[in-house]
Amino acid sequence: MKNVIVGQSGGPTAVINSSLLGVFKTAKDRGADIVYGMVHGIKGLLDRDIVDLSTRFKTDLDNDLLKRTPSSFLGSCRYKLPDIEGNEDTYEKIFAILNELEIYAFFYIGGNDSMDTIKKLSDYGEKIKSPIHFMGVPKTIDNDLAITDHTPGYGSAAKYIASTTKEIIRDGLVYDYPVVSVIEVMGRNAGWLTAATALAKGEDCEGVDAIYLPEVVFDLGNFLDYVGKLLKEDRSVVIAVSEGIKVADGRYVCELADHVDYVDAFGHKQLAGTARYLAGEVAKKYGVKTRAIELSSLQRCASHIQSRIDVTEAYNVGGAAVKAAFEGMSGQVITLKRISDDPYMCITEAADVHFIANVEKKVPREWITEDGTNVKKELVHYIYPLIQAEISPLWVNGLPRHIRLHVRSTIK
Amino acid sequence: MKNVIVGQSGGPTAVINSSLLGVFKTAKDRGADIVYGMVHGIKGLLDRDIVDLSTRFKTDLDNDLLKRTPSSFLGSCRYKLPDIEGNEDTYEKIFAILNELEIYAFFYIGGNDSMDTIKKLSDYGEKIKSPIHFMGVPKTIDNDLAITDHTPGYGSAAKYIASTTKEIIRDGLVYDYPVVSVIEVMGRNAGWLTAATALAKGEDCEGVDAIYLPEVVFDLGNFLDYVGKLLKEDRSVVIAVSEGIKVADGRYVCELADHVDYVDAFGHKQLAGTARYLAGEVAKKYGVKTRAIELSSLQRCASHIQSRIDVTEAYNVGGAAVKAAFEGMSGQVITLKRISDDPYMCITEAADVHFIANVEKKVPREWITEDGTNVKKELVHYIYPLIQAEISPLWVNGLPRHIRLHVRSTIK
Repeated sequence: MKNVIVGQSGGPTAVINSSLLGVFKTAKDRGADIVYGMVHGIKGLLDRDIVDLSTRFKTDLDNDLLKRTPSSFLGSCRYKLPDIEGNEDTYEKIFAILNELEIYAFFYIGGNDSMDTIKKLSDYGEKIKSPIHFMGVPKTIDNDLAITDHTPGYGSAAKYIASTTKEIIRDGLVYDYPVVSVIEVMGRNAGWLTAATALAKGEDCEGVDAIYLPEVVFDLGNFLDYVGKLLKEDRSVVIAVSEGIKVADGRYVCELADHVDYVDAFGHKQLAGTARYLAGEVAKKYGVKTRAIELSSLQRCASHIQSRIDVTEAYNVGGAAVKAAFEGMSGQVITLKRISDDPYMCITEAADVHFIANVEKKVPREWITEDGTNVKKELVHYIYPLIQAEISPLWVNGLPRHIRLHVRSTIK
Repeated sequence: MKNVIVGQSGGPTAVINSSLLGVFKTAKDRGADIVYGMVHGIKGLLDRDIVDLSTRFKTDLDNDLLKRTPSSFLGSCRYKLPDIEGNEDTYEKIFAILNELEIYAFFYIGGNDSMDTIKKLSDYGEKIKSPIHFMGVPKTIDNDLAITDHTPGYGSAAKYIASTTKEIIRDGLVYDYPVVSVIEVMGRNAGWLTAATALAKGEDCEGVDAIYLPEVVFDLGNFLDYVGKLLKEDRSVVIAVSEGIKVADGRYVCELADHVDYVDAFGHKQLAGTARYLAGEVAKKYGVKTRAIELSSLQRCASHIQSRIDVTEAYNVGGAAVKAAFEGMSGQVITLKRISDDPYMCITEAADVHFIANVEKKVPREWITEDGTNVKKELVHYIYPLIQAEISPLWVNGLPRHIRLHVRSTIK
């Protein structure tokens, strides 16, 4: 028996299910008997919440729908495995389940937090000399994974953000009085997503007027002065900001507001509100009409705008992880290596999970203009290939068709 | 000489430029010499800010791009003509310009506020026995125009809203703990747009759990109780609310917050914040993770998701207005009349502008469930035909291509 198991973890993307398909199809093609899916990641595994994916993906149409379905088909979790030392019982339990299911290889699709799971499981496996192979499959819209050129999920999010920004810019120019629009894009610590708004600029679009990334300390006074300057030049100003921009004392910009937004069940402050706060400050200072536009979760689940490059690469990293595991590799994460810019070409490699787990890759400072109000052309050139080509939604009755996990689990 | 002039007014839509094309092409086909465009509507006309549209739309590709370009190509205004009595000088000025340009017919594309312009100009024209024909071309995402079955612009916005809602629902189900998402949709007084979230429900989608329209008085206590009930049934709750829902004393829900959002340059309170307020109340009461998602201006400018039915009808009402004017009609607005539901068929008619200007059509109370927490199937059946079929963006270099008015005006 050569069974494998796959899980999805962390925030969803528009193409995370293409990686799931890449794992499933490649494992099947290479002779895997059963391909199990963990429902809600490692947490589902611990609860024995598992599905046999062959019962879900039966036809080519299922596969085509899966590629076009946003969010994690198997569900996700934000569960961090405890340190091995002192928590051996958790690991014993996991390995007991894996052994019972006769698992040959374990695949986890996720970002740098999720790769921590692969790191700990492969470390523990090595310790107990388990023959199970553990492989990480990269995914995150945030594009903040180390070593890899970029992460699957980023290209589609960037394509959505740039397309939407173009539309917002057209909309902002409609009136003959000044309007300042502030677009808030995801990214707590890394500005990759916000930088994608720079792609809006072209023959048919004026582009955004300023871009503020979390890699640069934000100064409210400088920001307001800059907006004042822009307002003198044009009647429509469009500015993109990362949700995670911070002022010099380390506070998030949205924390500068007089009122604090609600906190969630875990006591996390909600970051959203940066654009709203800044729009309010602009309205106060200049008496102009302002608009705050939060792209919110739309940017991570808008599978109706997918980059075909991204879909293909997401599938490929899933397939490459299976190939590597079936050739005996473990404790590695598949990475993408750009070997040519023109024409764009990327190959897959593998990197030791210890160099990737829990590491955040930020936008290099030299790709941001000195005054911190925009990005440089190097960054635009880096992103462009990743948003290329399309994959059309399957429109049924006027709406994009998806596939869903009807039953939450089958094997207990 | 048979010159015509056309303007766009009010908020933009994803298909308002298809109506512009319908006016332009039909006028040209029917022998118009010059088709002028007012830049920023009637306000632009008063400033003699006018373009010759033949210099802009030269090729079939221009026309195809125009159909796919969101927001008003000619720019818009929110300018209401003063009453005729006591303000004859304004009207004299307008008619002097129109006569100088040898205008045979005047077309205005807009909503119920904009139709007021057609009403006043045709009333004044009649008074002074001007031979100029004045025709209204309906457009508004709000779908709140009287007499017409629906308005061009609504179908595409509804398609975008329903598609996005499906994606938000998939995204909301990703974790294994409860999440309450509140989606805020445009609509100050009419719930047509918010009702479109009901279309998300289908074989592949759980649909939204509740829909609150401004046609029904909102009660916070009942809302929270209902959410509590939903939370017991499912771990992911998705609720759609109109920005304009009000409580019994007439205040907007977003005004219930302790802090007041910024007001714009005209002293208008910003309505956005309804979802955020409600999400905060849910988080406070139930301690669950909540998300507030404002579709904001994205819903009126997302031309990358257009309903082909809507694009076609938007073009047709423009064409029908020209035909009617060239046949001698004036002081009328083109309307859509649904003559069959299965198969869906709509024809154009014309209605006296006095019955349409400044009138708001709301969602009939009998299309909303008695407890006010959802819409009935009659409303869903009404909307469905309007979102059907697609028109693909013209993707260039990974992004939807648009066309823009490069020079703001040419004729002074």
